[in-house]
Amino acid sequence: MLSVNVWTTRRWSLPEAVAGYVARGIGGIGVWREKVAEIGLDAAVKLIADSGLTVTSLCRAGFFTGASAAADNQRAVDEAAALGARTLVLVAGGLPAGSKDLGAARDMVLEGVAALAPYAASRGVGLSIEPLHPMFCADRAVVSTLAQALDMCDEIGAPNVGVCVDTYHVWWDPSVYEQIARAAGRIQIFQVCDFLVPIPAETLLGRGHVGDGVADVPALARAVVSAGYDGPVEVEIFNSDVWDTPGDETLRILLDRHARYLEGIIP
Amino acid sequence: MLSVNVWTTRRWSLPEAVAGYVARGIGGIGVWREKVAEIGLDAAVKLIADSGLTVTSLCRAGFFTGASAAADNQRAVDEAAALGARTLVLVAGGLPAGSKDLGAARDMVLEGVAALAPYAASRGVGLSIEPLHPMFCADRAVVSTLAQALDMCDEIGAPNVGVCVDTYHVWWDPSVYEQIARAAGRIQIFQVCDFLVPIPAETLLGRGHVGDGVADVPALARAVVSAGYDGPVEVEIFNSDVWDTPGDETLRILLDRHARYLEGIIP
Repeated sequence: MLSVNVWTTRRWSLPEAVAGYVARGIGGIGVWREKVAEIGLDAAVKLIADSGLTVTSLCRAGFFTGASAAADNQRAVDEAAALGARTLVLVAGGLPAGSKDLGAARDMVLEGVAALAPYAASRGVGLSIEPLHPMFCADRAVVSTLAQALDMCDEIGAPNVGVCVDTYHVWWDPSVYEQIARAAGRIQIFQVCDFLVPIPAETLLGRGHVGDGVADVPALARAVVSAGYDGPVEVEIFNSDVWDTPGDETLRILLDRHARYLEGIIP
Repeated sequence: MLSVNVWTTRRWSLPEAVAGYVARGIGGIGVWREKVAEIGLDAAVKLIADSGLTVTSLCRAGFFTGASAAADNQRAVDEAAALGARTLVLVAGGLPAGSKDLGAARDMVLEGVAALAPYAASRGVGLSIEPLHPMFCADRAVVSTLAQALDMCDEIGAPNVGVCVDTYHVWWDPSVYEQIARAAGRIQIFQVCDFLVPIPAETLLGRGHVGDGVADVPALARAVVSAGYDGPVEVEIFNSDVWDTPGDETLRILLDRHARYLEGIIP
């Protein structure tokens, strides 16, 4: 199933996104909490339920290295449960202010996920640890590789804790194919977009439509499918040019790229 | 021994750098081929020999994924031999134009290093494979982690092929301490600088004086020493502000940071 993350059509409100995706025959929606907050959780739940869209992810919780993340993360779990989201995506958080102790920060993440897991399980919510590209290690996510995320899953040992595989973040990794195979049964969501070169000044926004960058997205998709993944492919693009494009035009391009690069691989 | 890479004082010619380093009591110099070419190899060899400076590295050869790198790499080996450089640093090269096949590019690097190694050995030159930060994977170096560089060393199995450990490139890696231990006896040069956040628009230039960024450089230095490394620490900073600072002021800052962060660790 093809899903679109609402941040891809960032200028759209949640109702506009839902209407736009349904009109294009897209089956899934990746939701951001900010978009839910704009209309309220109850309205969001009803809107999406009425639309027939599958909520393929809720973005995001985590930031375990910051102050008092725990209460907000429980609220995120509640929202994921209410929305029936396939998974709640966890972004680890960067180094605590003033610290250079990556090991300690990584321990905080491990403890944070482990502490959140039982509550999430009690609400029927899956948690997916998302490794982010190493250029975001200091300020956003001290979880930088799929191997590291899977090591955390192993250590936590909770059946509702898995990983998010996002092609943009993992494509460069020399061990990515080995680690995707290892991740069998634990990939809660597969997100795609391309890695643009050169990297833009705003490093977070170097995500492009599949085919516009250097990542071998079809190869990664085949690997995920080989690992037994039969879930949705969710397109998540942060890119100021894409955001400045009318949402429906973005969907047209995105559907074209999906047909060209992924349709035969991810059903 | 403290060494300074000439690119740190980029506005200085090679004679200016040699004079500046000697005046400050610095024992080593990391040389770039461009600076050698400006005055000619024979003059560079005589200049450095007369100065008493140790050539801790020659930067750089490699780029095995580009066209016809072989002849230029042999010239680089000849230059390293003439200069008595401790090692010739190899930057792998990025994806070939139009390709997204990282595996094939990595095979080209392996074959290129393996082919260069006997010639380097015949000239008494060590080759160090340098993993670069994953943000440079597509356009500069498909070797992204120390584990990957060491796997290549294992496969090539030539005693003159080792690695360059540069704190800027490896600090984020969850397996870096394990891999530094594994690299015992194969670290040909240890380069330092800090990783600045936010990453500047020109991503290559986000290197700072030790202490100005997020990398735990002392911890990495301790790990390298624990792995038996007793070679020089070479400071290599690419940073437009540093380059716009008079060379002697840069050396003053660099010596202060060395005294503060590394002197007790690296003799």
